[in-house]
Amino acid sequence: MSAIDDALRANEDYAQTFTTGGLAAPPRRRLAVLACMDARLAIHRMLGLEEGDAHVIRNAGGIVDDDALRSLIVSHHALGTREFMLIHHTDCGMMGLRDDALRARLRQQTGAAAVAPARFYGFGDLEADLREQMAKLRAHPWVPDSVTVRGFVFDVATGQLREIAAH
Amino acid sequence: MSAIDDALRANEDYAQTFTTGGLAAPPRRRLAVLACMDARLAIHRMLGLEEGDAHVIRNAGGIVDDDALRSLIVSHHALGTREFMLIHHTDCGMMGLRDDALRARLRQQTGAAAVAPARFYGFGDLEADLREQMAKLRAHPWVPDSVTVRGFVFDVATGQLREIAAH
Repeated sequence: MSAIDDALRANEDYAQTFTTGGLAAPPRRRLAVLACMDARLAIHRMLGLEEGDAHVIRNAGGIVDDDALRSLIVSHHALGTREFMLIHHTDCGMMGLRDDALRARLRQQTGAAAVAPARFYGFGDLEADLREQMAKLRAHPWVPDSVTVRGFVFDVATGQLREIAAH
Repeated sequence: MSAIDDALRANEDYAQTFTTGGLAAPPRRRLAVLACMDARLAIHRMLGLEEGDAHVIRNAGGIVDDDALRSLIVSHHALGTREFMLIHHTDCGMMGLRDDALRARLRQQTGAAAVAPARFYGFGDLEADLREQMAKLRAHPWVPDSVTVRGFVFDVATGQLREIAAH
């Protein structure tokens, strides 16, 4: 049984009771969330979000790389968000991941080198990495001071968010 | 009133009834979803996903750029997913977005040029762009043939997913 086929069956039920067909693209709460892709983070439930409320950007680690910058700049400048919420979490798979070791393993396993991704962005210290991502975002010339940037760690054992820094 | 403060209050309620504290990192359904950041896409609800089921990767447009590749490669090789589900959607803000026009506007508005993001990935044709993203993913030497890649368009008016291609 395919997980995608299961998801499609669930989508049929979702569409039956779908009532938010009239929403416009700009997020109602003017909020953009950048979080890790981790399966234990159900962002809407965790933050009490409904359809139409907020942009959600996710990647391995919740890293502010070129692409997250792209998405957040579009979010603010084209679609009017003005608060950015960054979410790292405990027990993250990117903690302790060594770029060079993973790259070497993939090269050996597949017999092929690859240009992209340029980096994997593994990290050692969770809170230090979160602060580094926030600093990169805040330093970007296209992220104005009027945008709020706040950083949190989600505890996968308790479901709770803890604020680490506002920048 | 801050949207982030609202979200934190909702998180207190979430943590009160949180029952999934014992989950491990690898996604239970071995599924990774790559979707647009659009506020109208509530991925877990749309696909019937629970905490622990699937990786969710999101960016402006649902583009397979360097970072989405990074996340999907980590998802498969480090955390065992074997189905990739790509989701574009109707009324996407990236449709018709012109990279050069946005870049010029941001430069003028802020008085600063920026190296990153390298591209904004606006597109003209929704289904053609989805097929292009799927092709980029399938061509990558670190995405083995054993991984299923299927592409969908979510209709923001009806809540329904429509399959465009399996690759």
